[in-house]
Order: sequence, then C-alpha cells, then structure tokens
Amino acid sequence: MKVPKGFEVAGITVGVKRSGRPDLGIIYSAAPLVWAYSATTNAVVAPCVVRDRSLAASGKPVRALVINSGNANCANGERGEIDDLRLASAAAEALGLSGADEVLSASTGVIGHAMPIDKLVTGLPQAAAARGDDSEGLARAILTTDLVAKEAVRDLAGGARVLGVAKGSGMIHPNMATLLTFVMTDAKVDQDALRAMWSRVVDRSFNQVTVDGDTSTNDMAIVFSSGLVAADLKELEAALLEVASSLAKQVARDGEGATKLITVRMTGAKDEVEARRAARTVAGSNLVKAAVHGSDPNWGRILAAVGRANVALNEAHVRVLAQGFELYYGEPQPFDAKVVSDALRSDDVLLEADLGVGSAQGEAWGCDLSEGYVRINADYTT
Amino acid sequence: MKVPKGFEVAGITVGVKRSGRPDLGIIYSAAPLVWAYSATTNAVVAPCVVRDRSLAASGKPVRALVINSGNANCANGERGEIDDLRLASAAAEALGLSGADEVLSASTGVIGHAMPIDKLVTGLPQAAAARGDDSEGLARAILTTDLVAKEAVRDLAGGARVLGVAKGSGMIHPNMATLLTFVMTDAKVDQDALRAMWSRVVDRSFNQVTVDGDTSTNDMAIVFSSGLVAADLKELEAALLEVASSLAKQVARDGEGATKLITVRMTGAKDEVEARRAARTVAGSNLVKAAVHGSDPNWGRILAAVGRANVALNEAHVRVLAQGFELYYGEPQPFDAKVVSDALRSDDVLLEADLGVGSAQGEAWGCDLSEGYVRINADYTT
Repeated sequence: MKVPKGFEVAGITVGVKRSGRPDLGIIYSAAPLVWAYSATTNAVVAPCVVRDRSLAASGKPVRALVINSGNANCANGERGEIDDLRLASAAAEALGLSGADEVLSASTGVIGHAMPIDKLVTGLPQAAAARGDDSEGLARAILTTDLVAKEAVRDLAGGARVLGVAKGSGMIHPNMATLLTFVMTDAKVDQDALRAMWSRVVDRSFNQVTVDGDTSTNDMAIVFSSGLVAADLKELEAALLEVASSLAKQVARDGEGATKLITVRMTGAKDEVEARRAARTVAGSNLVKAAVHGSDPNWGRILAAVGRANVALNEAHVRVLAQGFELYYGEPQPFDAKVVSDALRSDDVLLEADLGVGSAQGEAWGCDLSEGYVRINADYTT
Repeated sequence: MKVPKGFEVAGITVGVKRSGRPDLGIIYSAAPLVWAYSATTNAVVAPCVVRDRSLAASGKPVRALVINSGNANCANGERGEIDDLRLASAAAEALGLSGADEVLSASTGVIGHAMPIDKLVTGLPQAAAARGDDSEGLARAILTTDLVAKEAVRDLAGGARVLGVAKGSGMIHPNMATLLTFVMTDAKVDQDALRAMWSRVVDRSFNQVTVDGDTSTNDMAIVFSSGLVAADLKELEAALLEVASSLAKQVARDGEGATKLITVRMTGAKDEVEARRAARTVAGSNLVKAAVHGSDPNWGRILAAVGRANVALNEAHVRVLAQGFELYYGEPQPFDAKVVSDALRSDDVLLEADLGVGSAQGEAWGCDLSEGYVRINADYTT
C-alpha cells in the first residue's frame, strides 16, 4: 500500500533469519517527524526499548526507524547496548542523517543470542537505496513466525492518510510473543496532541489484544507524523484507532496455533477502564479460549472470568451472550446447545457480557487455545 | 488415614455424579469447632460461599461441614440459595444439630445446573450413619475429575495431628478449576490465633498454586480445630503449612492434562510478597508451561515472566536456573542444551530465579501445559 506523504520505506533480506525471508526494514522521512511512543511494561527490556524511551523523553523529532527481525537483541548484556547503538548509527550514516539520535531502533526475534550486527550494518546502504512508497516490503521485514503480513490504512476526508504495519505473536525460540507496530501519517498534528491521542488509541487497541498473556521484552507501538497534510484532529484520532484496532485484530487472529479470532465486548460497566479490563480477562482465559476452540457454548467460564476481573457487577443482572445468543441473564437461560455450538464454529467469534451496573463499554481481542499452540511452544528447539 | 481426635467423617454415593463415584461428604464434631475460612476472590460466587462467609463473620463455632461434588450449585439464581440452605439444614437434622448455622456447606462441579437436592437430602442420614475415623472416603467424595485423591497428614510432637483433604483442578463442564481444601486438627488453638495463622498458611500454599489462572466461583479452604490436644502454636502453624503445601502440590501435579509438577523458587526478592508474586507469574506463564512440557530449557521465557511480574529486580544480577543448571546470570550462560533438556524430562521440574535485590524468597507450584489440557477443555460436552 502507498505510504503517507513524506515517508519512504524499505524491507530487504540481509541474512539475520536463516529462512532467507526479509529481516531488515527502515522508515525514513526527509523532514523531521513528530512521533509518539508506547512500549512494553516488562521490567526486562531490550536495549532498543531503553534507547527509544530516552529519545522519547527528550521530546526531539526523529527522521528514521530501523528495525530488524530474527534477533531481539535482548538479554545480551553490555554487548547488546553496543550493538543497538551501532545499528542506529549505521542507519543514520546510510540515510545521510546527523547521528543515532535521529534514528529509533527496534528488534524482534530470538533473545539471548548475539546480534549478527555486521550483516545488518553491511545491509543498511542497500536498504537505504531500496526506499520507496510501498509498505508491503516493510510489513514483511518485521515479521518473525507470523503467518501473514499485517497492514491497515485509512484515508481522512481532507486527504491525509494513516497507514500502519504490525507484527504479532509469532513465538521465536527462546522468546515470547512480541507485538510491534509502526503507524505513519501525513496528517498535521503537534507532538503533544499526537502523544495524548496515541496513548488513548493504544489503550483501546494494542493493550486490548492478548494471545497468551505473556508481555514481551521488546513490544512497542510508534506513530510518526510528517505533518504534510492539514487534518481534523478528531478525524485523525478516529482513523488512528481504526488502523490500530484493525492491526490488533490481525495480530490476535494470527496468534500461534490460533484458528479463530475472539472478540469480547463488555457492556454495562461502571467505567471504560473496568469494561476493558473485564473484556481482557475473558479474552485471556485459557478455559474460555479452549472452549471457543471446541465450539463449546460454555457460559460458566465466561461468567467466572468476568467475576475474577475485579470489576463492579450486579450478579442478578449479568448477561452473557455468544454469537448473539443469550446464554445467561441473572440465571441460566434456555438455549439450543447444538445451534449455538454450530454458530461458534465460525472463525470469527463474538462473546458479549453485560455487567449490569453502568453504561460504559469496551472490547478486547484474542484467539482460541489449540493443541497447535502447545505443540509450537513445547517443541524442543535448543 | 486416621482423622484427628474429635472428628468423624464420611463419604458416600448418592447419585449426583452420573459416574456412580462418591459425591457426598461430611465432617462432624460432637463438640463445637474453632475454625478459619478462606474463599475465592471471584465476584461471582456460589450460595455456599456467601453463607459460609457470613457464618465466618459471625465468629461462632460450627459443628459440621457438608460437601457435595458433581454440582457446584452456582449461577442458579434464587433457587441456588434455597437449595444450599436446604442442604445445610438437612445435614444438621441428620447429625442431630440445632440448625443450619452449625453447618458449613461446600459444593463443586457443574455450574448453572439445578442441584439434585432431593438426592442429597435423602442421602444425608446414610452419610451420618457412615461416620468414622478414616479420611479416605471423604477425600474421594470431594473429587470431581481429579485423577487421584489428595490427603496429607502431619503429627506434632505433643501428640496432636493435622490432616487435610483437597480436590483440585478437575474441569467440569461447564465449569472451571476448583480448589477445595478441608483441614482438621485436634491441636488446641483459639479462633483468633487459628484465623491469623490460616491466613498466612493459605497465602504461602493454596494461593501459590496455579493450573490455568482461572479462579473458581466455589474455591474455599477451611481449617477446623477440635482443641482436644495441647499443642505448641508455632509447631501447629508449621504443620499446617506442610499439610497445605503438600496438598497444593498434589493439586498442581493433578492439573488437567498435567504430566509434570513445576516448582518455581524465587530468591533475592525485595520482600516475600514480591517473591511469591514473581514465582506465581512464572508458574502461570503459558509459554513457560509449554516449554517445560517439551523439556525445553527456555530461560528467555522465565526471564520475561519475571520481568512482567511487577517486582523489583536488578537485571545485571538476575539468575535463572532449571533443574539446578545455571542458564542465565546477567547474561546468557553456556550450558549443554541436551543435558539440561534431559534433566527437564523428569515429572518433577524445579525452576529457580534470583532477582538480585534482596534476600526474601517464595515458592509457587504449577503444571505443564499439554495438548491434553486443550483437548479436555475444548471438548464439546453440552
């Protein structure tokens, strides 16, 4: 897809991945970019997260992002920090920038293995030369074991565009699910406004997707604005949320071993925070996920997950629905188990619950728990 | 096993379970019992939990417990409350007690299905007549899909005995893992002291066991004292902790689909609460559980789980060990993957991590995540 005005992107293969798939990507802008950053809450983080965080704290614009897949450069001790800085410096040089402080870095893949930094440094001039306006190469270069590339785009009425790429829950030995997202827009917005809206957007999208409850050491979500097209800020935030939600759902659907996308919609909550927490708890429950895998209309597990989410609820008014069928409303409701189970055989499953105490709502997305998930993650791969 | 002095127990079959296995149990004492109670934090709870909680709040002694398996009597609306009270009243009558206020009740099994209360009421005189001093029948009568009965006993130097039974993480359609524990002792202890020590014991034992992260609507852990034997309170608390820890480990080992018991030992923590939280987070990680299932010495997943546990750690000093082999100490350590993997093939797996910031420690217990878990919980059983 065509990237927003002012951006150039590339994705090439330099050999970090043994598979020969693309593993080095760049995002570049000739003019300084306004940007906003959200990263993992894990206390163990990769050097790229530490460096990007400090650049975010400085509040200065950047001009590029360099991302490699196949190696997360995490838990590598001091050498990891040196390699991360080398990666950013080499990218700055290849792109003709003043230095590493103009370049964000991101890495995803195996942890605890030294980065093949020479391959990356050697490949960067080639990546710089390959810059163009199509996002597909970039979307491919950030994947690990994802089965499909993930992109989403929305055009604003005034002509601005929002385009994002993401990688999801591929599990790389000996690593964990990692969620990386890079969103570009040419909509004009100042740094403070962009940061405020990005925080709201991430809370309603990427922070609502769960594959297995494990938070990675390398997760990050970044939005960049080239500011070349005037835009209405409300419309921009709505477009960002649509793009981010689409990417989050794509990540959930492509979770390891997943055969179904589960959307959990929580209504009747005291406030939006509680609605989102309850939705996340249901989407993250192994028991719910396994029941959905088996197309089992097991409302007791949904009810129990809501109950342990630490949210206000009125038990006598709690409702539970699956694929639109009401299964519980203060007490068990009669339903045709065969009919509901058949409806649950879809690869798009909607679970709904109403907490019966307010009017706030929220959504979360996850995937079913399959034997495939266990097989993929139990494989002895050392 | 022989129950402590002053107790009489029974376990019989009345037909709540279709399998014909024992499903009605009682604990009885001729004299009033001092007791302490700990129950699920789930906001959705069964009527027995509500009633027992209110009896606990009253601070009055009780004389008996009635427990049925095969039906949790949860999410049954008002009828559930009526049935629970009927169960306790019938037990009081069969045992010659003054009324339901002298009888705690517990139910485990399917939720959202009406209790076959007549079968239970009819069976209670038979259960009362079957009272004896052997705990095995009781241990069997509280099981659902557990594969083995769970009992533990410790004798104090002064002659007092602590004996407990538990049921664990059998998954009953459409229900969730449920943990019930009943511990009896003849050690003399007053109510306040027993409550204080039970709270400490439960935090270090049952609250440290995780099978799939789902907290049931019916979980409870109760200790009763007949007070017939003088005892040292420190020795009593140690014995309670040993019995409770043994039962917690038996529950973890018998988790649905489990092939291994995982013990996670966390050291070097700021305080015990953080040590226990970090241990629980590792024991509950799907990625860690799947790696252990596959005997994969995947230290990156342990490190990442520790990192998201919201505990103080010093990354440069964090250590990770599996079966005694050091895999990570501030940076990856060299190890023979084949040797460590072979060691992980045991059905007793010890994972250790040191947080490098203090001297507190804690343990948690869990089980591996197998294809069997998914199969059991995905089966369409409606």
